[in-house]
Parts: sequence; structure tokens; C-alpha cells
Amino acid sequence: MRKLGSLIAALALAGAAGVAAADWQALPDKAPAPADNPTTPEKVELGKILYHDPRLSSSGTVACASCHNVFAGGDDNRGGSVGVGAQVGGRSAPTVWNAAFNGTQFWDGRAPSLEAQAKGPVTNPIEMGIKHWDEVVARLKSIPGYAPLFGQAFSGADPITADNAAKAIAAYERTLITPNSAYDKFAKGDKSALTEQQQRGLNTFAEVGCVACHSGPVFNGQSGQGAGVYFKFPSTDNPALEEQYGFSKDVGRFEVTKSEADKHFYKVPTLRNIALTAPYFHNGKVKTLEEAVKIMAKLQLDKELSPAQTADITAFLNALTGEFPKQEFPRLPGYPGKTFDFN
Amino acid sequence: MRKLGSLIAALALAGAAGVAAADWQALPDKAPAPADNPTTPEKVELGKILYHDPRLSSSGTVACASCHNVFAGGDDNRGGSVGVGAQVGGRSAPTVWNAAFNGTQFWDGRAPSLEAQAKGPVTNPIEMGIKHWDEVVARLKSIPGYAPLFGQAFSGADPITADNAAKAIAAYERTLITPNSAYDKFAKGDKSALTEQQQRGLNTFAEVGCVACHSGPVFNGQSGQGAGVYFKFPSTDNPALEEQYGFSKDVGRFEVTKSEADKHFYKVPTLRNIALTAPYFHNGKVKTLEEAVKIMAKLQLDKELSPAQTADITAFLNALTGEFPKQEFPRLPGYPGKTFDFN
Repeated sequence: MRKLGSLIAALALAGAAGVAAADWQALPDKAPAPADNPTTPEKVELGKILYHDPRLSSSGTVACASCHNVFAGGDDNRGGSVGVGAQVGGRSAPTVWNAAFNGTQFWDGRAPSLEAQAKGPVTNPIEMGIKHWDEVVARLKSIPGYAPLFGQAFSGADPITADNAAKAIAAYERTLITPNSAYDKFAKGDKSALTEQQQRGLNTFAEVGCVACHSGPVFNGQSGQGAGVYFKFPSTDNPALEEQYGFSKDVGRFEVTKSEADKHFYKVPTLRNIALTAPYFHNGKVKTLEEAVKIMAKLQLDKELSPAQTADITAFLNALTGEFPKQEFPRLPGYPGKTFDFN
Repeated sequence: MRKLGSLIAALALAGAAGVAAADWQALPDKAPAPADNPTTPEKVELGKILYHDPRLSSSGTVACASCHNVFAGGDDNRGGSVGVGAQVGGRSAPTVWNAAFNGTQFWDGRAPSLEAQAKGPVTNPIEMGIKHWDEVVARLKSIPGYAPLFGQAFSGADPITADNAAKAIAAYERTLITPNSAYDKFAKGDKSALTEQQQRGLNTFAEVGCVACHSGPVFNGQSGQGAGVYFKFPSTDNPALEEQYGFSKDVGRFEVTKSEADKHFYKVPTLRNIALTAPYFHNGKVKTLEEAVKIMAKLQLDKELSPAQTADITAFLNALTGEFPKQEFPRLPGYPGKTFDFN
């Protein structure tokens, strides 16, 4: 794990030198898969179905897609996500798009893989509200159409398991990649792909030091695989902003490790498609991208951006919206003539 | 409007004679469209987007598709649907599949068209919870990507209107047709398409009198267009079933007309894909299709079905599950860098 607690020191290097053109990297077309879960079309198809099946929630109303909407920016455009019984979560849903390129998952990085992440919300009492994965497995086994789907995707005599469900969802998520943004075309050599303002924004983004954390092809501090990269937020004290947004109410990664050194540390989130995933930050309290840019410069880099710099960086961030792959509707296997005991 | 209050009298004719083979009609491939809203690809595409856009709800969490899930049976497989703030509706969501062939919409037939229906849930306080359609229109106008979509689908200088949104949604819904069920193949002449049990069930379905209401290609008493067909439910008194299921707590169409003669009257619902839309009846209290078949015979036809008859009719009803058209994911236009004031 890399920790970037003292960003202001770290960025001296990056900021002073700027970022060489060669350092601007396009998004990979494919996401790496772990050795024990190679991506196959059968797993992806099953994963797409499970991802969109609200029967994975206690009420039958919340699917993975409810808070990570793949028709849109891969989140729900709310501050706190709404789970079963209209309960509202404490952190803003991160985007599922390009999550395959994160070294760890969740804001606090508590899941080391997409597979581990997929199991979390289902049994979270304020998200999908199922008491135990055994209940999900029992439901899936009682739906006749799931047996052949799991059978095609996985070997073994009894393929409908929690692990396999999570593997299928993760395999599907590894296909959720958004290449060919204006930025990607620029990074591949088409200098006309970015407007002049966006190019100014790109340079400002590097010069003021945003790249100290948001580096690499996914702007999440990672080159594709490896452990998560964490940052402290806020990095500087600002009573006025704290009063306004309450960023420090959340202790971040401390909740996972119980180590004082991890207090208020978070995984570096991707900036891909950031224009589509307002509101911003772990608590979703900041409603516009411009305000988010200003706040990050202030709290993390101790810099006051001019209105022009803020506008330029925001224009550049809009160039990180990619192309969304065409997908066909899944068909959720039926439960013919019967009803689950939803609450 | 046809009213079938006295089914027991009406079925004497149908039941005694049975139904001639020629009367079994396959589902039409296309739904009729009203003169003022011809179906066009542009409207259908826009309608698909609107249908799946949760920003049409106050909380940003409920879309048309939330309760009328087109990945599944076109409903939500719950007794009462869940709207904003986890409020639960009083009636079970009817399927959107083949709704284009209903003469009227909603259980009580209060909407004469799909266009009229589409406007209802958006401003229903326990469904999508928007105070006024003007708010929806304002949101749609503030999302840059909607302007060209409305502009391509509709003429006029200011095409983003509530009427046009409803027209687009209705145009999309007219494409939600499920042909080629086993029954349809049988009706078109392939006698091997139904199992022996399903054929017995089809004959029993006719002989005991179900066809008095559930007639025509959609099994909703209609030939495609025209005013709604209504029935009284329950048609006979049965204190034990009333105690168990409380069917009479709802006054049905009386709520719309305030006429005593309409008390406990409902639109005849389609039986297409009925195996996929449990639980059953207006209040969604009956959890299995077999139980629903038994209850309908008892309450509407005053007949006690044998277990074999019940199983046969249920098998036949399973043959009404059709083929679902392939559809591509819609892309919901973004609201770049901004956040709506969801509650």
C-alpha cells in the first residue's frame, strides 16, 4: 500500500516539473482478471443478470444497478445511496465504471478485489438487507433458470454458490470500461481532441499537483493492478469548509484498520467520467464539479485556484467522459407462478 | 365499455359450447398507435430512456422500470410496489408487457391510454413523488442531452413538454410485446407446441368459463383497441377467502366513477406472461398461480376445480410466457458536474 499523507511535499516534484506528454496514458481496453477468476463470456452474461437482479435484496427492490447505474455514470447521483426501507447510506456510491482498475474497492479500500466487494452490499443491513448470503443462494437455487446459467459459467456439481455469484458479478464489472474519451484520443496523439481550454486545464491539473494522487491511465494513482493508493482527506485544516461540508465526520480507513495512522485516509478515486458522478467526495456533500476542484486544491494542495484555473481544470475533467459499451438487456430468470417472501 | 357483472350467466354460452379452435388467436406483432402519436424510432428511443430514468422521481431512485421491470415480467413481483421513501402502494403493479393491447390502463381503468397512464405515477406522492410535471420538465430541460432527443422525436420550438414525455414513453411501451409463446405457436397451427397437459388446460380454461372475461389474443377481453372491459371481483361472497385475502377492501373502479354500480369492478387483466407476474390479483395477496386459478374459479365462476383441473390450467397459463424482444441499454443523458436537489 502506498500512502500519500503529505501531498504537499510529494507534489513539489510533480508540480515543479509538470508532467511530460509521454506520461499521459490512455485507458486500457481490457481489465486484468485474477488467476482464479478468468473472464469468460458465460460469467459475464451471468454477472450482468445478477448485477441487475433486485431479488438479491431483502425487499426485492434493490439491485447492484440501483446505486451503480450502468445506464448512467455508474453511480446514483445522490449524496447518500438509498437502500432497502429507504435507508440512506453514509458514503456516496463510487462509480462501477472502470472500477476494475482500482487496486482496492470501497472508499476505505476494505475490499481487495471486485469479488470481495460484490459480496458486501448484499448483506449490508442498510443497502440490500439480506441477512446472510445463504439466503441469496437459496433464492437463486429456487429460480429454475439460474441453474443452467451457473452451470455454463462454472464447473463443479453444485455451482450456485456465493463465491461464484461474486465471481460472475466481478467478471461482468471487468467489462465495464469506458475508453475513447476526448482525453484518451489526445493521449494517443490526436492533439485536436482536447479544446484549448481543456489543454490548459490538463497542464494546470499537472502543475498545481493534482497528479500527485490522480495519476496513471485511470487517474486513481495506479497503473492497473496492485494494492490501493490512499490519501488523507482533508490534508489541511479549514474550519470554514469543515463547517460547511463536514468532511471530517467520517474517519475513513480507520474504520477498517483501527489504526490512528489511517484516520481520514481514503482510496484515491478515479476521475474517469467524473463529470457524470456528482455529487462529490466520500460524503457526497459537494454538488458541483467546479466546487469540488476548488476544494481539492484548497484542502489537499493548500492552493487557491483562480476562477480561470478552476474553469480550465473542470473543462479538462469533462474530457475524461468515455464511451460506454453497448450492452443488451439481461433477461432475469423467472420464478414461475411463485413469490418470494420479500419484506 | 363492456361490463361483465354477471359472469356466471355470461359463461353459460362460452362454457357449454367450448371455444372453437379458430377462436384461439395469436398475439399481434405490432400494437396499434393513436392517430396523434404514431410510433417512430426516435420516440421509442427517447421513451426507453425516460422509462429508465430515475430522475423522474423526487428522490432520484425510482424509474418507471423500478416497478415495471422489463428485464423480467414487466412488474416487480411484490404485493405492493415500493415508491419513494419506501412507501408501499395499495395495488400490485400490472405488467407493462403487452399493456399496449389494453383498452384502458390501471386496475381501475382510470387512464384511457398509455399516454395518460404514463403521467400518473410520476406525480403520485407514494410512487415517484414529484409535486408537479413542471418540475420534471424543468429537470429534463436542464439536462443538455435531452434537448436533441426531444427535438428528433417531436416537432415544435419547445419540444420538452409533459405531453411529449408521456407520448415517448407510450411509444416505447407499444414496442413491449411478447409474441411466440408456446400458446401462440399452437394457435398458429403447431399443435405440438403445447404439451398434452397444456392442451387439456386450454380446453378446461374454456370449458369452465375463464374465457368469458379472458378472451381474445391478449386474454384481456379485448381484440386490440376499444374501451376497457371490466369485471366484478369477487363476483360471489366467500367469507373464508375474504378473511384470508381481503379482496373486498378495495372498491375498485368506484374510486374513479363514484358510481355504486362500479364498486369492486376492475379492468380484465391480461394473462400473457402471467407465470412471471406473481403475486396475483389487485392487492397482490395470492402468492402462487395455482392458488390464483382455484380462487378465480371459486369466486368468479362458483366452481370448485379439481387438483388435476387446477394443475392443467396452470400448465396452460405457463404456455402464455412469450419471447421478450432484444433491447440495447439506454444511455441516460448526463447532468455534467451538477446535482439535482433530490430528497
